[in-house]
Amino acid sequence: MASADEADMSDSLRSIRSRFVLPEEVIYLDGNSLGVLPAGLSDRMNDVIEHQWGTRLVRGWNDAGWIDLPSQVAGKIAALIGAETNCVAVGDSTSVNIFKVLSAALSLRPNRRVILSDRNNFPTDLYVADGLTKLLGQGYELKLATADTMEDAVDETVAAVLLTEVDYRTGERYDMLTMTKHIQKNGALAIWDLCHSAGAFPVNLDAAEADFAIGCGYKYLNGGPGAPAFLYVAERHLAGVAPALSGWMGHKTPFAFTPDYLPAAGIHRMMVGTPPILSLSSLNIALDAFEDVDMTLVRQKSQELCDRFISEVERRCPELELVTPRAHERRGSQVSFRHPEGYAVMQALIANGVIGDFRAPDILRFGMTPLYLRHADIQAAAEILERVMCEKLWDQEKYRKRAKVT
Amino acid sequence: MASADEADMSDSLRSIRSRFVLPEEVIYLDGNSLGVLPAGLSDRMNDVIEHQWGTRLVRGWNDAGWIDLPSQVAGKIAALIGAETNCVAVGDSTSVNIFKVLSAALSLRPNRRVILSDRNNFPTDLYVADGLTKLLGQGYELKLATADTMEDAVDETVAAVLLTEVDYRTGERYDMLTMTKHIQKNGALAIWDLCHSAGAFPVNLDAAEADFAIGCGYKYLNGGPGAPAFLYVAERHLAGVAPALSGWMGHKTPFAFTPDYLPAAGIHRMMVGTPPILSLSSLNIALDAFEDVDMTLVRQKSQELCDRFISEVERRCPELELVTPRAHERRGSQVSFRHPEGYAVMQALIANGVIGDFRAPDILRFGMTPLYLRHADIQAAAEILERVMCEKLWDQEKYRKRAKVT
Repeated sequence: MASADEADMSDSLRSIRSRFVLPEEVIYLDGNSLGVLPAGLSDRMNDVIEHQWGTRLVRGWNDAGWIDLPSQVAGKIAALIGAETNCVAVGDSTSVNIFKVLSAALSLRPNRRVILSDRNNFPTDLYVADGLTKLLGQGYELKLATADTMEDAVDETVAAVLLTEVDYRTGERYDMLTMTKHIQKNGALAIWDLCHSAGAFPVNLDAAEADFAIGCGYKYLNGGPGAPAFLYVAERHLAGVAPALSGWMGHKTPFAFTPDYLPAAGIHRMMVGTPPILSLSSLNIALDAFEDVDMTLVRQKSQELCDRFISEVERRCPELELVTPRAHERRGSQVSFRHPEGYAVMQALIANGVIGDFRAPDILRFGMTPLYLRHADIQAAAEILERVMCEKLWDQEKYRKRAKVT
Repeated sequence: MASADEADMSDSLRSIRSRFVLPEEVIYLDGNSLGVLPAGLSDRMNDVIEHQWGTRLVRGWNDAGWIDLPSQVAGKIAALIGAETNCVAVGDSTSVNIFKVLSAALSLRPNRRVILSDRNNFPTDLYVADGLTKLLGQGYELKLATADTMEDAVDETVAAVLLTEVDYRTGERYDMLTMTKHIQKNGALAIWDLCHSAGAFPVNLDAAEADFAIGCGYKYLNGGPGAPAFLYVAERHLAGVAPALSGWMGHKTPFAFTPDYLPAAGIHRMMVGTPPILSLSSLNIALDAFEDVDMTLVRQKSQELCDRFISEVERRCPELELVTPRAHERRGSQVSFRHPEGYAVMQALIANGVIGDFRAPDILRFGMTPLYLRHADIQAAAEILERVMCEKLWDQEKYRKRAKVT
């Protein structure tokens, strides 16, 4: 393996780092929890607040293009997930979007009553699915399998399978193409959660013939804390889905103010209420950092960073157990290790300038974000982690005290 | 009636105007569509973006208090709507919150299948109710009445009555106290939409013994375009409601990442996904403009402004027909007139420096926001409206061309 410095010298994404504001004193390996601040975003948001809102006031809906902002953002996200703009809607949280696509999927399979998901899926996916089945009653239920048993679990009762492409804890990646085919062959619909995929590597929903997808705006897309989420509906389903959350922004003619609900044509019917323009503007601005970025290069660098981190950490910290698959095609853009004192280890690591995160019960998670990380950062992070482990810096009461958000 | 200048001299809310940034060249009578920019908000948002997000990064959830921000904002809104903080949840759009409280209400009345609302209610209320009944099937339905027939329509089939306290077109106000009692006497639950109430005049949900409420953050609360909305659940219902939108932020222990959904205690269970921190921060900052403001004085000034506008416009523009009730207790904080060419009239008025809005089919709507409007503004607006009408300035092709948002 080339040295970190050599690798950085020959990194074709090297110049992209300047598109972000990175605090000097930390190495940030948590862009898969919250992406960093794009350069220039602060000034552009100032303009949104002072001129679009402050000066244009309500006229901003037309003059500043707020009413079209969700579509504008959808176009930028569509380009990153292998979709047409007219199949992507932006707004609401990931959780709310899961509810929207799940209810849409169930309506397309009226004779089946099971939502199937992965026991290790991100909890909100499971919670929302559970809540929907309880709301519907009538025999609807959520069934859980694991990656190993998933294929067998897709039987004739299953209406929809909700899977997150990349496991938020282990970084293990489903084979979207193969699994989608398998799900559909068994008469069910495939819903992909792209929270740890969009912006992390090339995604091609159309090529995979996915039925639905959702994803978040604040991880690899760098849209800011709690940035609006997105959803995807395959074009073939667009005309047939009746939105369960039928708000005015999904109406055919919202400003006619008629009492009867008529869904808008196409993807617009999946919109609900008035979008949060400030958070949405931030996401819109952030997505410009992907301009002219070749996602295959992002994927390649991501795997190089993962390989380097695994190699350096395994050599230096034998007490950490790798949980992320070694094979490139079986993982996303993160590396996770297990340690029984994982929480305290991560707190000590953060105190020493390397920000990753902890996921219960014992996972240390490190996100690789090639747009702004250098090989040298990975090298330095491994060295600091080594010190935390060898000198047992984590073994202090203050690092065991749980924060609200862990 | 005192002259406008005299009235402004003796206005006890006069100094509050400086808490807002008001563009010089316009008179803004549309704060009931989008509130104005609070002074200092831009700088404080800059700090949220550059320091909380940019520097603290993911640590902002703990260090900058993002995780508690929804509760912080809920506390400020609770004070304006006569509720305890532990009965108010902030987040999502008004439309999504309507879905949440409607589904919660239906779960409390399992033997009744009708949602009753007002045919003239804001459309999204009707659309969301309609979507929910279609999702549930099993005989659930939305029935519509009008203010005149509402009382009689509350029969033994009605589970919940969804009413907007102040009609968005006419400004007519329901008597919340009397109607709530009537609804409950007939075994149904009362849900109040406070979009045109919160921040406009004193609201007292607890005193009215309302069951549920929702409202938006971007009108009289000045939270910015598409600011997060809020909902209220009466304390007596909190333990019994199962959230239909059961996202991780409503979980008892979101960061334990367990696969099974357990609702949080109390109002927190009504939260769903990760909140949009930028838009929510803006709302949080905006609400500080209400600090030490006596809402009874706001109500009093609001009615003075309405009276002045009605009196001046009726005298000057006989072709405009008043549709807002004259009696103070029967109206909110807006004045509406009808004109067959309402759209063009409003466009001409805006072009001449007075911003109100048009609501289909023929309503000119003027919002009275006592925190930043002066009697002199009302006087000047009436004079400009007179010129638009007398000189038929509206009678031009360019003013008839509809914008996307009207």
